[in-house]
Amino acid sequence: MAGSPRRAAGRRLQLPLLCLLLQGATAILFAVFVRYNRETDAALWHWGNHSNADNEFYFRYPSFQDVHVMVFVGFGFLMAFLQRYGFSSVGFTFLLAAFALQWSTLVQGFFHSMHGGHIHVGVESMINADFCAGAVLISFGAVLGKTGPAQLLLMTLLETVLFGINEFVLLSLLGVKDAGGSMTIHTFGAYFGLVLSRVLYRPQLEKSKHLQGSVYHSDLFAMIGTIFLWIFWPSFNSAPTTLGDGQHRTALNTYYSLTASTLGTFALSALVGERGRLDMVHIQNAALAGGVVVGTAGEMMLTPFGALAAGFLAGTVSTLGYKFFTPILEAKFKVQDTCGVHNLHGMPGVLGALLGVLVARLATHEAYGEGLDSVFPLVAVGQRTATSQAMHQLFGLFVTLTFASVGGGLGGLLLRLPFLGSPPDPQCYEDQVYWEVPGEPEDEAQGPPRAEEPDTRA
Amino acid sequence: MAGSPRRAAGRRLQLPLLCLLLQGATAILFAVFVRYNRETDAALWHWGNHSNADNEFYFRYPSFQDVHVMVFVGFGFLMAFLQRYGFSSVGFTFLLAAFALQWSTLVQGFFHSMHGGHIHVGVESMINADFCAGAVLISFGAVLGKTGPAQLLLMTLLETVLFGINEFVLLSLLGVKDAGGSMTIHTFGAYFGLVLSRVLYRPQLEKSKHLQGSVYHSDLFAMIGTIFLWIFWPSFNSAPTTLGDGQHRTALNTYYSLTASTLGTFALSALVGERGRLDMVHIQNAALAGGVVVGTAGEMMLTPFGALAAGFLAGTVSTLGYKFFTPILEAKFKVQDTCGVHNLHGMPGVLGALLGVLVARLATHEAYGEGLDSVFPLVAVGQRTATSQAMHQLFGLFVTLTFASVGGGLGGLLLRLPFLGSPPDPQCYEDQVYWEVPGEPEDEAQGPPRAEEPDTRA
Amino acid sequence: MAGSPRRAAGRRLQLPLLCLLLQGATAILFAVFVRYNRETDAALWHWGNHSNADNEFYFRYPSFQDVHVMVFVGFGFLMAFLQRYGFSSVGFTFLLAAFALQWSTLVQGFFHSMHGGHIHVGVESMINADFCAGAVLISFGAVLGKTGPAQLLLMTLLETVLFGINEFVLLSLLGVKDAGGSMTIHTFGAYFGLVLSRVLYRPQLEKSKHLQGSVYHSDLFAMIGTIFLWIFWPSFNSAPTTLGDGQHRTALNTYYSLTASTLGTFALSALVGERGRLDMVHIQNAALAGGVVVGTAGEMMLTPFGALAAGFLAGTVSTLGYKFFTPILEAKFKVQDTCGVHNLHGMPGVLGALLGVLVARLATHEAYGEGLDSVFPLVAVGQRTATSQAMHQLFGLFVTLTFASVGGGLGGLLLRLPFLGSPPDPQCYEDQVYWEVPGEPEDEAQGPPRAEEPDTRA
Repeated sequence: MAGSPRRAAGRRLQLPLLCLLLQGATAILFAVFVRYNRETDAALWHWGNHSNADNEFYFRYPSFQDVHVMVFVGFGFLMAFLQRYGFSSVGFTFLLAAFALQWSTLVQGFFHSMHGGHIHVGVESMINADFCAGAVLISFGAVLGKTGPAQLLLMTLLETVLFGINEFVLLSLLGVKDAGGSMTIHTFGAYFGLVLSRVLYRPQLEKSKHLQGSVYHSDLFAMIGTIFLWIFWPSFNSAPTTLGDGQHRTALNTYYSLTASTLGTFALSALVGERGRLDMVHIQNAALAGGVVVGTAGEMMLTPFGALAAGFLAGTVSTLGYKFFTPILEAKFKVQDTCGVHNLHGMPGVLGALLGVLVARLATHEAYGEGLDSVFPLVAVGQRTATSQAMHQLFGLFVTLTFASVGGGLGGLLLRLPFLGSPPDPQCYEDQVYWEVPGEPEDEAQGPPRAEEPDTRA
Repeated sequence: MAGSPRRAAGRRLQLPLLCLLLQGATAILFAVFVRYNRETDAALWHWGNHSNADNEFYFRYPSFQDVHVMVFVGFGFLMAFLQRYGFSSVGFTFLLAAFALQWSTLVQGFFHSMHGGHIHVGVESMINADFCAGAVLISFGAVLGKTGPAQLLLMTLLETVLFGINEFVLLSLLGVKDAGGSMTIHTFGAYFGLVLSRVLYRPQLEKSKHLQGSVYHSDLFAMIGTIFLWIFWPSFNSAPTTLGDGQHRTALNTYYSLTASTLGTFALSALVGERGRLDMVHIQNAALAGGVVVGTAGEMMLTPFGALAAGFLAGTVSTLGYKFFTPILEAKFKVQDTCGVHNLHGMPGVLGALLGVLVARLATHEAYGEGLDSVFPLVAVGQRTATSQAMHQLFGLFVTLTFASVGGGLGGLLLRLPFLGSPPDPQCYEDQVYWEVPGEPEDEAQGPPRAEEPDTRA
Repeated sequence: MAGSPRRAAGRRLQLPLLCLLLQGATAILFAVFVRYNRETDAALWHWGNHSNADNEFYFRYPSFQDVHVMVFVGFGFLMAFLQRYGFSSVGFTFLLAAFALQWSTLVQGFFHSMHGGHIHVGVESMINADFCAGAVLISFGAVLGKTGPAQLLLMTLLETVLFGINEFVLLSLLGVKDAGGSMTIHTFGAYFGLVLSRVLYRPQLEKSKHLQGSVYHSDLFAMIGTIFLWIFWPSFNSAPTTLGDGQHRTALNTYYSLTASTLGTFALSALVGERGRLDMVHIQNAALAGGVVVGTAGEMMLTPFGALAAGFLAGTVSTLGYKFFTPILEAKFKVQDTCGVHNLHGMPGVLGALLGVLVARLATHEAYGEGLDSVFPLVAVGQRTATSQAMHQLFGLFVTLTFASVGGGLGGLLLRLPFLGSPPDPQCYEDQVYWEVPGEPEDEAQGPPRAEEPDTRA
């Protein structure tokens, strides 16, 4: 079981070598391809006759920073609810997202902002890269506790490529609108992770059952993640929309939707809870579904009422999913979904895509006026009817589900490579496999050696 | 004591039904009344000939987001100092504020932005709704641990209406200036909560005395709240002021005032502490009084020195309040003020109102130049003298105290309705009454059933 | 040891009197010298014919707020990794930074924005004061746990003055570029603190060895600090740069550099860790070195590749420093560096200064175009060659090291004054010397009296 000394040394080198290899590769690709864009390059910016106030930086950087908080603080701490997996939740989020930012700058740049053989970067590419990192972290949530950092880096490597392709097909080829990523981020990230988790199914996972729950303090750390995600979601959905009314309306719709998903979640959680008690799992997660569900329609003329209705629906569906569907998902479909991403990102993402279909179908020149050109440019110029736009939106959902499922399957096969050092069943959800963990207060400095070497399944 | 099964079922349904009822009502009212304003509506915005850079979004959204962090992270975690009430502090903050945002959008909209039968919403209504949520959470602080979520939702329902009326009387009828809400938010929220707490007085509260304190980690969670409140308070006070120098000056004054209240708090805390030790309660709370005290005068020409002096005074008064006045408040006045909102919001709020009277009295055309029109429009056009403005400011304080006291009294009577499921005395400050609470590390997953059913006092 | 009653009373009054004295002094100086600048003064702003959108507030306040979060949340919680020193880490950060903001407004204002006998303040002075507070907190990191609040306030008093002088010499006299402060903030703060720690060397410090480590939850609190520092570092480096492409490019470079230092840190931490395990100390600190290393060159045309390379180098050097150099620093050089500021701020700061030398040397009119005037004004007008600018940059590093070392030495002598109440060796890293500390859950409210009076070494 413990393997030969040589094999142990190999495992020890796995994460360092993979990090160095990936960093070396992206650095070389950056040197060859990546250049400042017109708004960040000293010569190009000053060549034009711009006012500094026109620089895109001032319109999007505050939103970018909010998104950045969501990716690193929000996702990281939300996943820290597990009692002995906080270091990994926050730490691997940090590692995966940092790599995803570099790698998706290249992948998305290749598809979206390649000019004269160069990828041009600025605040918009920063936002887009953070969005891709968000999708990766959603998938991470499905396999949380059951995968090692080397596996997760390979997942990120693959998922980022497929994310970029899927996003390109939807936004550029199909002309689908999806600013906040109900499809491209949430649906894609969730089903990629769920299929991947299915492939990595562990029939003996109850061996680490004592570590699968939270403790009092870990639930409070998780609430830090929840609240920052909730607060900044209006910035997430509005970060890439058109300037002016577009960003303003998207932020407003998301804000209303989130308040309604929160009320819906509290209502349903108490309704289905034992003796009417609220469940932290619901509050930490389902209350956020209102942000997911308006990821597509948020920039449209959804109306404030529409935002409330959508958010409420998402919060209730998500809570019911945690209560009733997650157990079925494991028992019948053999999908072990650690964070319940199917409830928070999967179903609300699909609902959000369908809401986008509906609201696009209802688009009229009267409702949008001259603004139709920003929201549905192909409809505005007469190239498509609203119905056709709606059909394209629906098709985009199917494309996304296909890419996510096939990609998750491929990812699962990749992560089953025997030398990747997956944690053994009894040590899932346990930091000590990958981290030096300090002892408890007043103990001696060195914690007890409770964890064994990772299982290589060789 | 345990009640009949039927009554238990009724209690179980109370919170869900109340949430659903309130959400349904606001949704209907949103459908009838709430519309995008000129800056968020696609057709209206593009109808005018605006530059996108002119959209109010870019002037106020970053400040809004800071306020949003204060309401949800700041208040939520600040109140998580109690050792076994962290879920409720953060969770009920989340629930109450989410509902308050919806409900105050309606109430404030009815008073402030009703045009042609519709309430027009955008980033300014978002800021105003968050301000109302702030007042509700201040009141929550006074009754923290002694009330259930159904009671608190009813409190929010009532308080939001009275907040809206009081704000309308002050800002619109009396022409009072109060951008950061020394009166409308802090004084109102504090005295509403204190009177409410008086009506709910529990003579046997020492039965839960062992739960009224903090533990080491809960104090650190509370400091998350404190620090985010402290950092973003300049944005809070400046969020609704006039653009340009108005926002700039308000942020600067608040920044200085907070540094001085921090130094004053450390000085006084060590001075009155046993053996010169600092008390976390003071640092967590009184250091913030500098933000409260310039809530009215922050937008005026207070001068940087004036901001320091005001902040220092507020920090010292607040610290002394925690040390000497809180015990008297309970013993003599039968007001059990869990978070000491009288010290952080009550006294500094009143001081802030009086500071506003003073600084308004000193306003001259010379000091404000053409800017007088933004800060004191009625004085600028000659409709009032500075002295008259000061008298109106003072009258605004009395109006606020009256609304808060009467409202808090009504609220207390409402919350004493016997079927509302208030926690019994020995289970105050205890999450397990309302939440599924996980066991401690290494225990079995299910926590011990320490809590009984809530007392319905029937 | 315990001292006479009179001496004990003196100690008890020390912190209060010092706070009151310092606050009184800055308040008087504010009254005499500090005035609103043109952009915050009602009369001055409205006297010109400006659009409100031109107010500097809208260009810099969002970045300022990010910096503010870094100073108070970032530094405060990063230092809360110690198991029994969280109150002091967060609390003294709060106190020192609040005082530093006031005091450095005066010192920096005296050197940088004195007009007609008055210091003019606004958002730029707020950013600069926060930067000085950052340097003070870096020095605090070197002596964390071994100094009392009165000592630390005196350190702040001295360091702020020297910071202001050094900054003035570099930026104004030498024409050195250092927007994000690789030299003025990181190198200065680190070596000031390290020399100071050398002077305060405690040969018996192993007496408090049991308190020098972290526990599981304290490491998670520290990660809150790390992640917020990491997220907002692009705002830190770009906050004071020229508007337009300058801020945009600096933020972008910092963002890339940080991703690379994160990958480098994970790689090296696993490589040098026992059995390939990651070490939280490295992740919490070295991953941030990418922000430090582009503090000078970030606003230059570093290229995205250059940012990755620099960040990677800094992350690896910093991790290796924690592993191999920190023990040498204590054993051979008698420098006890609690937070390892030499690894996070010292070496990466020096590297950042040298990177600035290199990139300045490579500056050409071709690469910067008309933008050369913003980045290297003296080169643009022909007053200096790029080589000469590079030499000035290098000289700036030596000046900084000199000021920091001499200043740290003086500071150390100051802090050894016998009446300042330094904690005795066995009670270093222990909150109870200075704070009322609550008991553990389920204990009685009052914690056990483990700590004795601070040692006055008299």
